[in-house]
Amino acid sequence: MSNTVHSTTAQPPVAAADVTDGQMINKFDPRSAAATLSPADQALLARRRATLGDIYPLFYDKPLHVVRGSGARLFDAEGLEYLDAYNNVPTVGHANPRVAKAVFDQLSLMNTHTRYLQDGVVSFAERFLATYPAHLDRVIFSNSGSEANDLAITIAQWRTANQGVIVTNMAYHGTTNLLAGASPENGPSMPLSAYVRTVEAPDTFLYGEDAGRVFADSVRDAIADLARHGMGTAALLLDTIMSTDGIFPGPNGMLNEAFDAVHAAGGLIIADEVQPGMGRTGEHMWGFQRHTDNVDMVTCGKPLAGGLPIGTLVLSQALSDGYAEGHRYFNTFGGNPASIAAANAVLDEIEDRDLMTSARETGEYLMKRIAEVSATSAIVGDVRGVGLFIGVEMTASASHPAGALARNMINGLRDARVLISAVGTTGQVLKVRPPLVFTTADADEFVRAYEIVLTTVEEGALL
Amino acid sequence: MSNTVHSTTAQPPVAAADVTDGQMINKFDPRSAAATLSPADQALLARRRATLGDIYPLFYDKPLHVVRGSGARLFDAEGLEYLDAYNNVPTVGHANPRVAKAVFDQLSLMNTHTRYLQDGVVSFAERFLATYPAHLDRVIFSNSGSEANDLAITIAQWRTANQGVIVTNMAYHGTTNLLAGASPENGPSMPLSAYVRTVEAPDTFLYGEDAGRVFADSVRDAIADLARHGMGTAALLLDTIMSTDGIFPGPNGMLNEAFDAVHAAGGLIIADEVQPGMGRTGEHMWGFQRHTDNVDMVTCGKPLAGGLPIGTLVLSQALSDGYAEGHRYFNTFGGNPASIAAANAVLDEIEDRDLMTSARETGEYLMKRIAEVSATSAIVGDVRGVGLFIGVEMTASASHPAGALARNMINGLRDARVLISAVGTTGQVLKVRPPLVFTTADADEFVRAYEIVLTTVEEGALL
Repeated sequence: MSNTVHSTTAQPPVAAADVTDGQMINKFDPRSAAATLSPADQALLARRRATLGDIYPLFYDKPLHVVRGSGARLFDAEGLEYLDAYNNVPTVGHANPRVAKAVFDQLSLMNTHTRYLQDGVVSFAERFLATYPAHLDRVIFSNSGSEANDLAITIAQWRTANQGVIVTNMAYHGTTNLLAGASPENGPSMPLSAYVRTVEAPDTFLYGEDAGRVFADSVRDAIADLARHGMGTAALLLDTIMSTDGIFPGPNGMLNEAFDAVHAAGGLIIADEVQPGMGRTGEHMWGFQRHTDNVDMVTCGKPLAGGLPIGTLVLSQALSDGYAEGHRYFNTFGGNPASIAAANAVLDEIEDRDLMTSARETGEYLMKRIAEVSATSAIVGDVRGVGLFIGVEMTASASHPAGALARNMINGLRDARVLISAVGTTGQVLKVRPPLVFTTADADEFVRAYEIVLTTVEEGALL
Repeated sequence: MSNTVHSTTAQPPVAAADVTDGQMINKFDPRSAAATLSPADQALLARRRATLGDIYPLFYDKPLHVVRGSGARLFDAEGLEYLDAYNNVPTVGHANPRVAKAVFDQLSLMNTHTRYLQDGVVSFAERFLATYPAHLDRVIFSNSGSEANDLAITIAQWRTANQGVIVTNMAYHGTTNLLAGASPENGPSMPLSAYVRTVEAPDTFLYGEDAGRVFADSVRDAIADLARHGMGTAALLLDTIMSTDGIFPGPNGMLNEAFDAVHAAGGLIIADEVQPGMGRTGEHMWGFQRHTDNVDMVTCGKPLAGGLPIGTLVLSQALSDGYAEGHRYFNTFGGNPASIAAANAVLDEIEDRDLMTSARETGEYLMKRIAEVSATSAIVGDVRGVGLFIGVEMTASASHPAGALARNMINGLRDARVLISAVGTTGQVLKVRPPLVFTTADADEFVRAYEIVLTTVEEGALL
């Protein structure tokens, strides 16, 4: 199957001046007047700056003040309704009542840690591990994808006795000190660690059918360079849908040549499933399964538990027990019964409502419709995706770089009460990644707004 | 005020063979027969090993299977009731109904992230920051004390342009790769980072009134050594109650000489409040306030939100905005409305029930009673503490090292249905750290069990 349903001529690689340099494309500048906000929201914004500071940027030129949600809808302080085509944390919908009740029931019983025997965490672990290939039979719970990735790298460096970590050019893998050093998306002001090498993502827009080979070549170069520096290859840490690189699901199996090269060099494959995981790709529970089962560790976080903090590292018994033999790891909140109850309710919903099938069918329909209304657009270069993870590649006009057009699309859609964001080297790829409860009616609503905003942005692009 | 209410002769420093070498003193060995467990618990234990593996050790020779809790009580699968004199996560009691309802109400509205404007996280941040000295006026939310400490070190190294981090000999500060390298409690199989230096804790049992000076001397030595290696001092990262070192609250102001030395060297003080924070010491909301307000960053996690994952880093506007200027930090679950609602309910309970006063009064009563019944014991060297954080230092008998006696006390009390643990260089210090809802009636119940178990352990110690 091809993941690309609409493609114009490929563009040359972006000029250096056009890259995001670590600036979040969809970032609100708090030093702007924010005059478009209501007086109440301006007051809230001022209080926010005086307590949280500027370290967490808000989304949008005009930030959104959310007060409640339901399914794939969010509502702002004035009661206006927004279609959420962005958030992957509320996998089973905003304010899912089954999740809320499960957490309440658990908190009303107790919420303690894994140093006591408990039924819930064991039963969930069994159920959760059953969604993975058989050789991945142990799970370590933490509180975020960051904590999971941080531990995965630590275990890979211990197991292989190598240091080198390979990531893609625009990878983002988390917030800890170790992961900031392995997340080039953060930009040049946050240096990469000495043992980190970046590789070209399998950019199917630039390289078409060669994308997998280009990626494998780049990985082989990184392996050779790490060997030349005496560090060896500990791991390839990879989001198999390349979300931050620009969303390149590619054909099934596209990554396998690179994976084989890493294994041949003695390194491990760590699949970071924060983006594609939990049924989103529609055919498998985990994104790496589109390509191969032959991965060594799998991490997840965001989509697992309806927004309650959780992280998971799934690995083999040999790796887990081997590491436990000489090392201590304890995580106070990791596996706490409330987060586990939420994650269990999310699995209930995914199974009972067959949300994986829905992700596949609704995703195919949404991608087809986006491609249809983009077919004649001069500023859309490609529409690609798998399941409910769709990327729309904007291409530069005479007056506007692609990232600026993407920003106009995002803010235009926000004003039309539809939420998306953007990713890619210059923030030029619209990221459409709704909750899995998104329906075909939601898709139709999305496309209606998208078509209007695209026309407006195109008219403003002085082609 | 003296924090030591009973003390026999000080002991010489422990022999190397007696240290814990990173082994958790109160650890269940899953490879043991576990024959004392019920058939149902043996089956659960086997399922646990087959999913979670051995990486999270259980407590006790006979692990405890908890199913529910209430206030300072936990109940096992057979319905037996345990007095919880150990857990600091359920600050306001197990299964606190106000926490459960607050989380349910929030989850029924929405639970999204800090890239949208929200009231709850801002209102909580204002209230939370009001409990800190005025110069600490910004908060960064994450999901654990680990994530908070990891970021604090990163910010300290950026701000000072130095690398060196100073911690105490048995410090434990978290699970990330960076913090594992700054947590000597993990033992020799987990190496410290090249830029980490360990210092003597202010051991009031060994050094009496000189403890503060011994600590300051050791800190000055570390500063000099870091300077000699060209790394400089970025931070002293310190739990001001020295929980893992053996619980040394010491007299108010004991730490200030060392803090001044760090500041003079251009380093920052990071107070890790996971242990003493959130009112536990009885006189202040935060443990460092017993000594000085002159700290630069304050982290917390465990006691904040009734077991929902949360981490906080509190710092000055200058530090926060300065770091935000050149760096990105985002934490998907950090500041999520559910964890914030839980933390807000915990603050409600602390204020409305005046749990800080209760911690002071109940703590003083409990410490006095423990000291009374320990006064004639040859195997108790010291009873010390502040508020509801009490350490009981066991001393070796002819046949038993102090750590073994502590282990016998812990398991004896578990059989008497009272929960504690142990800390210190050889695990020789009983750690009594109950939820803040602990009452004087609970204290009496604790002391009745403690006295009986102490007599039994002493009789078995072949004095």
